[in-house]
Amino acid sequence: MSRGFNFSAGPATLPTKVLERARDELLEYGAERASVMEISHRSKAFERIAAESEADLRALLAIPDDYAVLFLQGGATQQFALLPMNLAGAGDTADYVLTGLWGEKAAAEAKPHVGVNIAATAAASNYTGVPDPASWALTPGAAYLHLTPNETIQGVEMLDLPALPAGHAPIVADLSSTILSRPLDISRYGVIYAGAQKNIGPAGLVVMIIRRDLLERAGAPRAKILRYADHAANQSLFNTPPTFSWYLAGQVFKWVREQGGVEAMAAANARKASTLYAAIDGSGGFYTNPVEVGARSWMNVPFVLADAALDKAFLAESEAAGLLALKGHKSVGGMRASLYNAMPQAGVDALVAFMRDFQQRHG
Amino acid sequence: MSRGFNFSAGPATLPTKVLERARDELLEYGAERASVMEISHRSKAFERIAAESEADLRALLAIPDDYAVLFLQGGATQQFALLPMNLAGAGDTADYVLTGLWGEKAAAEAKPHVGVNIAATAAASNYTGVPDPASWALTPGAAYLHLTPNETIQGVEMLDLPALPAGHAPIVADLSSTILSRPLDISRYGVIYAGAQKNIGPAGLVVMIIRRDLLERAGAPRAKILRYADHAANQSLFNTPPTFSWYLAGQVFKWVREQGGVEAMAAANARKASTLYAAIDGSGGFYTNPVEVGARSWMNVPFVLADAALDKAFLAESEAAGLLALKGHKSVGGMRASLYNAMPQAGVDALVAFMRDFQQRHG
Repeated sequence: MSRGFNFSAGPATLPTKVLERARDELLEYGAERASVMEISHRSKAFERIAAESEADLRALLAIPDDYAVLFLQGGATQQFALLPMNLAGAGDTADYVLTGLWGEKAAAEAKPHVGVNIAATAAASNYTGVPDPASWALTPGAAYLHLTPNETIQGVEMLDLPALPAGHAPIVADLSSTILSRPLDISRYGVIYAGAQKNIGPAGLVVMIIRRDLLERAGAPRAKILRYADHAANQSLFNTPPTFSWYLAGQVFKWVREQGGVEAMAAANARKASTLYAAIDGSGGFYTNPVEVGARSWMNVPFVLADAALDKAFLAESEAAGLLALKGHKSVGGMRASLYNAMPQAGVDALVAFMRDFQQRHG
Repeated sequence: MSRGFNFSAGPATLPTKVLERARDELLEYGAERASVMEISHRSKAFERIAAESEADLRALLAIPDDYAVLFLQGGATQQFALLPMNLAGAGDTADYVLTGLWGEKAAAEAKPHVGVNIAATAAASNYTGVPDPASWALTPGAAYLHLTPNETIQGVEMLDLPALPAGHAPIVADLSSTILSRPLDISRYGVIYAGAQKNIGPAGLVVMIIRRDLLERAGAPRAKILRYADHAANQSLFNTPPTFSWYLAGQVFKWVREQGGVEAMAAANARKASTLYAAIDGSGGFYTNPVEVGARSWMNVPFVLADAALDKAFLAESEAAGLLALKGHKSVGGMRASLYNAMPQAGVDALVAFMRDFQQRHG
């Protein structure tokens, strides 16, 4: 066994136990005499997978009954377009608060389909914090308010939703890189969506949690396959879903429950993040993270070396030490360590030990 | 090992050799120290998977350079909507020829996005054949002509494309259940698309082969994620693709090449189909297939028992004998045996032997 500690931002590390089980039953799932990826999505065995995965997710996040849970395709990026098509009518405006590049992309992809108002942006500060909610220029009667509560690239997180004026528009939140990392108050959101390839499973699956009254909005004229309401009415089996990815997501949900649920995840994630931020902040400037302390992500920790000439050596040596995929996003440079649920404390401890050693040798 | 012969229409049987390899490297792919589903789609290892899979598919189908190959999400069903959005402008008409339920769905999903002309339909004959091409009412200047050359539910196949008037619109073909089953003359098509879950790999992936000049059509205003041109310009890495499904598709392409390519597949598939149709036709009416002989699918063989009261026993006994998923589609009833590339002749021989035995015991 030579699996490394994989800090990839996504597709990302999965629990080894989940992968082992998937391996062991890859050719024959249960009593099916076929792989789980070879059975019909209309079969009893798959119906059970679908029902259990939804039940486990509902239990994990205490999802109220007036929210539907959808398992879709296309990545979060496809939802950037489908959200306005489903939630906004002709002439409507949607508000976007930008705290990083993913929010920018969400707004850009929405523009052909809805009037986009950038209610606030932290672009001027190079996305190192969250704009003061008192300054958000919200549109009265907006179709929705879009947030990216955790920005995977910039490592900026809204650790809690801000208080907003009474009667504000439904909050639509891209939680791709933070879902299941700690408890959520679902009732504060209109829509939550998350690409699976960080805390849920393999790429190619999107989980959406949507308040049912929002399914009744007509949106723009479009095919049924592009309508959330049709997916909800068909339990996400309107067409053939990505069955293997869905099965793996279900296994991850069970794993999170075995670990103690999102409360236990929150405790573990807080500890992992504080271990790494303490190492960065305690390095005397050898390593730095640019994000305001109150907006630092638990999941994605970008950091730069004071001497960028050492980047290459850092990456080569860390990889040789089994600390994988630490290269930062090209738009930010430097390093990035993603600390999703499946990353154990031991991985962060190994990273921090490596960083200290590297500094001693190169500092 | 107790894998059955799996006749599911999709998700469908995959080559055991491919599944074994996926199992053996599920926790560690090559020298990556991580699962293939845990590595970045921007990593060198995944770039190699993407490039090799495209090269293998191009070699298998002799795809000319003026065609792009895309690996997308959303199933063939999503393309029902995206095709008109990409290929048709305001006021355009597209022609649809209906030879079964999938063509019906394709036309219905296109309707919000383009003027749909049903150029021909075999609905009146209950989809048991292909309407005479001389009778197709094609629209001059149509944006495209949509065909479903193999109808998975009805088991009706256009074994060759018909001759069409010079200057006809580009043919857009849903080859989900027949791609790679035999050689194709790609140059006769404008667009070929195929959901993976029959002859390519697991559900959640769509392969599209599109003539590059069609990428230049503006289509309807829409987000980039909904534009084939943007996917092509980004080698299908515009957003995170379904990496594990893509990897498996690549393994299936290599397996098809090892078997001798689509010519060898065609020989094997012709033999499998003729074995089963001969058994049906030779049963003295105990089993019947309703499709005109010249339009019988090589891939999907629906058949009914003269005495429908025996259906339940047939299904229970065949399943007990390791012949899986033979239940017909609910809209047609009876049985259906799908004979995709990964179904060996031994599976068809076992099915035919079972059918004879069942008839002797119940006939």
